[in-house]
Amino acid sequence: MSGCIAERTDFKAYIFVSMMVSAFIYPISGSWVWNSLFADTKGWLEGLGFIDFAGSTVVHSVGGLIDLAGAICVGPRLGKYAPDGKSLAIPGHNIPLVALGVFILWFAWFGFNCGSTTTPDGTVGYIAVNTCLAACTGFIASLLTVWVMTGKPDPSISMNGVLAGLVGVTAGCYEVSPAGSIAIGVICGVVVVLSIVFIDQKLRIDDPVGAVSVHGVCGFLGTVLVGVFAAPGYGSNVGLLYGGGCGLLLIQLLGAVSVGAWAFLTGMLVFKIADKLIGLRVSPEVELKGLDITEHGTDVYSGFQIFSNE
Amino acid sequence: MSGCIAERTDFKAYIFVSMMVSAFIYPISGSWVWNSLFADTKGWLEGLGFIDFAGSTVVHSVGGLIDLAGAICVGPRLGKYAPDGKSLAIPGHNIPLVALGVFILWFAWFGFNCGSTTTPDGTVGYIAVNTCLAACTGFIASLLTVWVMTGKPDPSISMNGVLAGLVGVTAGCYEVSPAGSIAIGVICGVVVVLSIVFIDQKLRIDDPVGAVSVHGVCGFLGTVLVGVFAAPGYGSNVGLLYGGGCGLLLIQLLGAVSVGAWAFLTGMLVFKIADKLIGLRVSPEVELKGLDITEHGTDVYSGFQIFSNE
Amino acid sequence: MSGCIAERTDFKAYIFVSMMVSAFIYPISGSWVWNSLFADTKGWLEGLGFIDFAGSTVVHSVGGLIDLAGAICVGPRLGKYAPDGKSLAIPGHNIPLVALGVFILWFAWFGFNCGSTTTPDGTVGYIAVNTCLAACTGFIASLLTVWVMTGKPDPSISMNGVLAGLVGVTAGCYEVSPAGSIAIGVICGVVVVLSIVFIDQKLRIDDPVGAVSVHGVCGFLGTVLVGVFAAPGYGSNVGLLYGGGCGLLLIQLLGAVSVGAWAFLTGMLVFKIADKLIGLRVSPEVELKGLDITEHGTDVYSGFQIFSNE
Repeated sequence: MSGCIAERTDFKAYIFVSMMVSAFIYPISGSWVWNSLFADTKGWLEGLGFIDFAGSTVVHSVGGLIDLAGAICVGPRLGKYAPDGKSLAIPGHNIPLVALGVFILWFAWFGFNCGSTTTPDGTVGYIAVNTCLAACTGFIASLLTVWVMTGKPDPSISMNGVLAGLVGVTAGCYEVSPAGSIAIGVICGVVVVLSIVFIDQKLRIDDPVGAVSVHGVCGFLGTVLVGVFAAPGYGSNVGLLYGGGCGLLLIQLLGAVSVGAWAFLTGMLVFKIADKLIGLRVSPEVELKGLDITEHGTDVYSGFQIFSNE
Repeated sequence: MSGCIAERTDFKAYIFVSMMVSAFIYPISGSWVWNSLFADTKGWLEGLGFIDFAGSTVVHSVGGLIDLAGAICVGPRLGKYAPDGKSLAIPGHNIPLVALGVFILWFAWFGFNCGSTTTPDGTVGYIAVNTCLAACTGFIASLLTVWVMTGKPDPSISMNGVLAGLVGVTAGCYEVSPAGSIAIGVICGVVVVLSIVFIDQKLRIDDPVGAVSVHGVCGFLGTVLVGVFAAPGYGSNVGLLYGGGCGLLLIQLLGAVSVGAWAFLTGMLVFKIADKLIGLRVSPEVELKGLDITEHGTDVYSGFQIFSNE
Repeated sequence: MSGCIAERTDFKAYIFVSMMVSAFIYPISGSWVWNSLFADTKGWLEGLGFIDFAGSTVVHSVGGLIDLAGAICVGPRLGKYAPDGKSLAIPGHNIPLVALGVFILWFAWFGFNCGSTTTPDGTVGYIAVNTCLAACTGFIASLLTVWVMTGKPDPSISMNGVLAGLVGVTAGCYEVSPAGSIAIGVICGVVVVLSIVFIDQKLRIDDPVGAVSVHGVCGFLGTVLVGVFAAPGYGSNVGLLYGGGCGLLLIQLLGAVSVGAWAFLTGMLVFKIADKLIGLRVSPEVELKGLDITEHGTDVYSGFQIFSNE
């Protein structure tokens, strides 16, 4: 959640929201899908047959939609939108670190998806293959999409495509074939670029790292696509494309919408409470000077000459 | 050891000391605890029942106390202490790299602690949980401590709290319960901040990255606390808190003091020898210009405009 | 391959070459050694008894020699060679990231070499030891070599020594003893420095990160040295040093030369085709401004003040 609102949010409000998300919002919707809070009963979505193997919805959609609530409540960064409403780019300061972060997430995702089997039942291999294929095809799809749209193969957006593919395949990595993973990666890689542009330029919601699009939109999409691409011979479900009918697809849609609505609405509530109790937004002086210096007392790149917007 | 003295120490002296530490100081005290140098006999501390599962004392205290010897022998950096003795901050130049380094260590610590079981005997799970809990609570405790003391939640100090918790739980991760790990993390997280301030401002020993506090003090503390928090049902020992009496506590104290004294005294000896043979301290000109340029012939951030203190 | 030519090569040509390498050059020579493209037949080098356990030749020499073809075809960076032919240093801009990259590769190499056993047959332990010993001794050998040659222990070159040792031991990590790994690491660590200097200053081929020397030369060398150091009691082969005669050595030499020639010649062909179809080299204006800005539309370190060579 950090990237979305960290540059303009009061640190105490930020901690309060993080605690509420971890203690209430995430565990409750998680219990609908993975484990009921009450012993010996299934969560209601689990009972319906909803599939979210490693958390496209439970983890990523929830995070992405709380992000969306936060970005709406905190408002855009100073200077992000011109008086005429035009979105102005505020570029990241260190693209090599962006790339490194993406590769660390990619690496860790093998643990995340493969480890969600919980037992070594021989499925780890194809889960790893599915995970990597979606990451690769998400990258290629985002790169081509942004290249066509802007004339430049932008590296930041392309790397968001890696994460989009990974988020998308997380729900179904146990249920889909490698071909299905490629399809999910491509779809998420294209959609994430369109979503980032739409949220930034049409909705005018300032989401600096595209977290709403990557985690919220692709988490939703990946969950629903299990109902299309679940393949015979992998998990124990069959999706629309393989003749399984619309049943699973509708359950996936129901689960993704239910959890998404829960996350967004409780997220809005928590941010509103944080605003009343603590105050969400730092002052313009603090924001321009940078929260690292004003709130944390730290010069992040001490000794380097930085262009200042003060 | 590098962070402690690297900015002002002759490279050849530095290599000499590293070789002496690796070849003599560490193996000898290690043999007291883990494996005797002589086949088929136990080390004397091992024989007494001293517990240091993955090396709070054997690895971290030894490193931290040799650090202390080094920082004393090399003396403070130019400009670190004002003529009236006041400690002046020399901030780190790249806080994102600090955070990255802490996360890499945190990740690797799962291998370090869990891997020290040497056999897959079903204990890896709770060792990993204990390791992570101490890291988390160390972070929170350091963040709150520095926040109360200075009014700002300083990120560098807070990240030292992660390492403090990890170093502290390393001795007892096999012997303590999750509750004990939380306690060890909190204690180490508070103490590391107080120790950093005390060493910097009262003792006026210049330890740039807090290595003496993190590794030396928290290594010592974590070792001794095994005598308090060793819990029935985990390892095969019971500490003071669970009715095991003071026996283990005294043995832990004896071991931590013995190994610590060995490391500090032999560290002092080795640094004194290095000073005689090679010369420990670079010239003021070299130090101000930076050892990367003068000793290694490398401009670390070529092309970036840096504020110079020349 | 990226580091070798990325700063001066058209992005579309670069993608084209990458696709040709991945789709044709690498799989074909790989099939000679590891798995025939035709089921139930061995590759011709595999049939002769050629050993390349984890890919010193199959992976690294191939990459390094395609690099060499690329560096020749693209030509040196602007300003790399003075009118009188003198090689001018163009230093890297972020040495901490270089070190981080080397450590990430080192870490991942344990997976690369140990994972190439494909079955858990009890050999993983000594393969890991061999891998790490070659990395360490490669580092020390390069550090000492560059120190003697230039008077300064240059960190970038020394870190190339880590990679040189790792690349060198990759072919034989299953076949050689720890003593053999040390020997391979030392030989590769010395040779990589000489090779970097030779290619840069005598051949005047501009290879910015030393990829030809690290991957091409040390990959070749490590493959051939299996014929010398393959030790009884490790894999199932015995090299020259242990009385196995010259047979294996000649087969290793044949394989390394054959695959190397294949990679270099097909690499030249692919780069020539890319030049005809797309154009390999960007314009001087684009190169001076930087391909990140001109081709990718990205300011890599936005906000930092950078010395410009425009």
